[in-house]
Amino acid sequence: MQGDLQALRERLAEISDLMRAGGVLVWDQRVTMPPLGTEARANSLATIGRLAHQALVDDEIGRLLDRLLPYEESLEYDSDDASLIRVARRDWEKARRVPAELRAEILREAARGHQVWVDARVKSDYGLFKPALAKNLELKKRYVECFEWDDHPYTTLLDDYEPFMTTTEVADVFDRVRPVLSELVQAAPKIDAPFLDLSYPSDLQRAFALRVVKTLGFQDDAWRLDPTVHPFCISFSNRDVRLTTRYNATGLDSFWSTMHESGHGLYAHGIADSLLRTPLATSPSLGLNESQSRTWENLVGRSSPFWEHWYEPLQETFPEQLGEVGLETFLAGINRAEPGLIRVEADETTYSLHIMLRFDLERQLVDGSLSLDDLPEAWNAGMKAFLGVDVPDDAHGVLQDTHWGDGSIGYFPTYALGNVISLQIWAAVRAAIPDLDDQMRAGELTTLSAWLRDNLYSLGRKLTPRETLERLTGSPAIDPEPYLAYLREKAGALAA
Amino acid sequence: MQGDLQALRERLAEISDLMRAGGVLVWDQRVTMPPLGTEARANSLATIGRLAHQALVDDEIGRLLDRLLPYEESLEYDSDDASLIRVARRDWEKARRVPAELRAEILREAARGHQVWVDARVKSDYGLFKPALAKNLELKKRYVECFEWDDHPYTTLLDDYEPFMTTTEVADVFDRVRPVLSELVQAAPKIDAPFLDLSYPSDLQRAFALRVVKTLGFQDDAWRLDPTVHPFCISFSNRDVRLTTRYNATGLDSFWSTMHESGHGLYAHGIADSLLRTPLATSPSLGLNESQSRTWENLVGRSSPFWEHWYEPLQETFPEQLGEVGLETFLAGINRAEPGLIRVEADETTYSLHIMLRFDLERQLVDGSLSLDDLPEAWNAGMKAFLGVDVPDDAHGVLQDTHWGDGSIGYFPTYALGNVISLQIWAAVRAAIPDLDDQMRAGELTTLSAWLRDNLYSLGRKLTPRETLERLTGSPAIDPEPYLAYLREKAGALAA
Repeated sequence: MQGDLQALRERLAEISDLMRAGGVLVWDQRVTMPPLGTEARANSLATIGRLAHQALVDDEIGRLLDRLLPYEESLEYDSDDASLIRVARRDWEKARRVPAELRAEILREAARGHQVWVDARVKSDYGLFKPALAKNLELKKRYVECFEWDDHPYTTLLDDYEPFMTTTEVADVFDRVRPVLSELVQAAPKIDAPFLDLSYPSDLQRAFALRVVKTLGFQDDAWRLDPTVHPFCISFSNRDVRLTTRYNATGLDSFWSTMHESGHGLYAHGIADSLLRTPLATSPSLGLNESQSRTWENLVGRSSPFWEHWYEPLQETFPEQLGEVGLETFLAGINRAEPGLIRVEADETTYSLHIMLRFDLERQLVDGSLSLDDLPEAWNAGMKAFLGVDVPDDAHGVLQDTHWGDGSIGYFPTYALGNVISLQIWAAVRAAIPDLDDQMRAGELTTLSAWLRDNLYSLGRKLTPRETLERLTGSPAIDPEPYLAYLREKAGALAA
Repeated sequence: MQGDLQALRERLAEISDLMRAGGVLVWDQRVTMPPLGTEARANSLATIGRLAHQALVDDEIGRLLDRLLPYEESLEYDSDDASLIRVARRDWEKARRVPAELRAEILREAARGHQVWVDARVKSDYGLFKPALAKNLELKKRYVECFEWDDHPYTTLLDDYEPFMTTTEVADVFDRVRPVLSELVQAAPKIDAPFLDLSYPSDLQRAFALRVVKTLGFQDDAWRLDPTVHPFCISFSNRDVRLTTRYNATGLDSFWSTMHESGHGLYAHGIADSLLRTPLATSPSLGLNESQSRTWENLVGRSSPFWEHWYEPLQETFPEQLGEVGLETFLAGINRAEPGLIRVEADETTYSLHIMLRFDLERQLVDGSLSLDDLPEAWNAGMKAFLGVDVPDDAHGVLQDTHWGDGSIGYFPTYALGNVISLQIWAAVRAAIPDLDDQMRAGELTTLSAWLRDNLYSLGRKLTPRETLERLTGSPAIDPEPYLAYLREKAGALAA
């Protein structure tokens, strides 16, 4: 039995090594690669993806998993070994349905599509982007055909990011959230914050963000922060975490973008060493992962106690811009609800509305009820209906996000689910650390990050998303109430 | 036949994709990776190396090569297809001798050893480095055992960098060069150049170097320049070329280091598109590759005509440091022969002496006549004997180079061979571009780079090193005379 387990572990480690290598290639493409390197990069990524896929679907892994079933059943459900065998079996069964060539083509077109998107976004030219999107979408439809689904073909795509959740379940959550958000947005007081339209030198933004990130609980020499076009976080082990951010000409958005990616980074950093080089060395779902980026970005990074400590250093960093702005004014500005065009710069209240629009559009693209020719118009109409804003051009509209260019369809809903889940977990955090606000006021964030590491991040992907949620909160259900209550309370405080 | 060729090409493309991916991982490790990422990186590199090796030694490649022999023989010797089949056969036959596990272990220990070296060099602690070096050396000895050799076990290692050349042949060249260099160094006039000991802000060094590099003939968006511990150049296609350099606290060495790596980069950039994703998309040998880095660093970058154009911009960049220094004084300073401790900062005359010491030590390490315990002492004694300098500590001695940490043993001789070959090729360049000096005086370098691209770089690895040299110079022999004549003339000019 130990021989079989060792053999399985070696095969899974090889796959993990390849995936991590592919991750390095993706990070490099987005942070450092000269643009003309795209074609070679696409080939390398496709080859690595194909080899990883071939290694995963190997018959021998199926035989090993069969032979290991009695061993798995003899173990505690959440032990490392039982979890490894169980999760590997699901991965294997899913991967066996997808031809290696399709997998490679998806990766190759994703790498190409990303570069086309970068170019098209700069030129605000949807026509330039459409053929790449069409190719990615067609490949995703072929991927969907490899699976069976109950409620909607979109569920197949969703499952890659939010396992075990159906399109219908997501729609149910969103149907409860949307009317409340619309109401809050309409009722939101208009808050002027001209200091958020000033120019902040990016080297100082970086220096301040690094000061904060260093207090979050990362080990030294295990992470770095770089600028990129579209901020993301990726890791190549729990000790090689790459945060990225984007410095805008005006405003301080890069700070919350950095806090956001730091939340993802802390998750990756907290995964237990015993899970390295296995498929368990990640989070159970992107919704859970996103719950943590939103926790650090918003529940920490926009909170009053946090800024009671950090506002003075921020003022000292930017005396011209913030010297005359009081803490209360600053907090009101960074917490206001104000419909805007760009998702990644959206406030907490409007953010999920951006997501729900993308969820609607994606479902229609996948089931064929919306054509790519009509997509920009549908986008603009949706922005008007959901947020009441007029989209001036595609760069600020349908071209703003990197995801579709990368072939990541089914990914967006996890962002709004993350918002919802973050408040469910936050209630557990509050109960476990009663003096958390005092700690934040003292600039102390490591009790928080250590608790989240020990109780969530370290578990990796051993449990399903719902099992993980249940362990933290006592219930497996995704419940929007704490999230809506939080937004209502925030709106009330701002209106007061 | 076309089906077999296509099948061979696909297999070789997959191997190339993996090798390029491994290259990205190496670049990242040396330029951007947080130090604690080493272990995961070593695993990914080992896995990629093992898979590339397994793909290369596949029986099917042997069968394809056999079946393609008649086709190969029907083609022109230097056609793309004939060259591909011929070179792939040699690679296959060499690789078949090496167990995949040994290949993976060599790569894994190289990645680990590199990080140990970085740390040991900073701490100037050979004892810290020795176990990693011992491991790398032992693996290289096991590698040597996979092959047969005529003259010296070292020839096996040399062949990976300088194919078809024996240890004896290298020693013969070096035996002719060394006495002349020693004589020139001893007779060299003492030239003061205090301006080379001043501080030059690294951002201005970078800006000036970039201005120059942009005139060398690189296509935009196909290259980048980054700082690192030990400068190197790597490419992931002919349109993704990564130059690196190191900015010191004093002096302008980073400029010639950047020109050096640009020479490697122009070689990679000039490889014909038709050779991409094949084993031909590289140079025939490191000696030939190095001949080009030395060409751009020295024959161009230390020449009077080059600086007649570029010295004024350099003075404008550094008015405090160079405003009062005349061109003649500058040229004498950057061309003086002066024994020093550090190879990568050595002048043209002393440089090859650094190499010959390493060649002696490596041969002794490989045949067992020198133990690792005695290596620092042998290094220091050699530096005294070859260059007359006293080594103050291991950071400035045996720990200065990255190569042994990476397991690159057999690599160093190619540097001195490059010096020798660069002058043989330079004679051909001079004959082909009679007004080259005038062009350089006008800041025009693209005629030179285009000629080298068309006549050398674009050939890739289709021909052997000697065949390539013969095509350029009319003779396949490595002849040190032009190199020695060049150094003698330079010494004469400085003494005058």
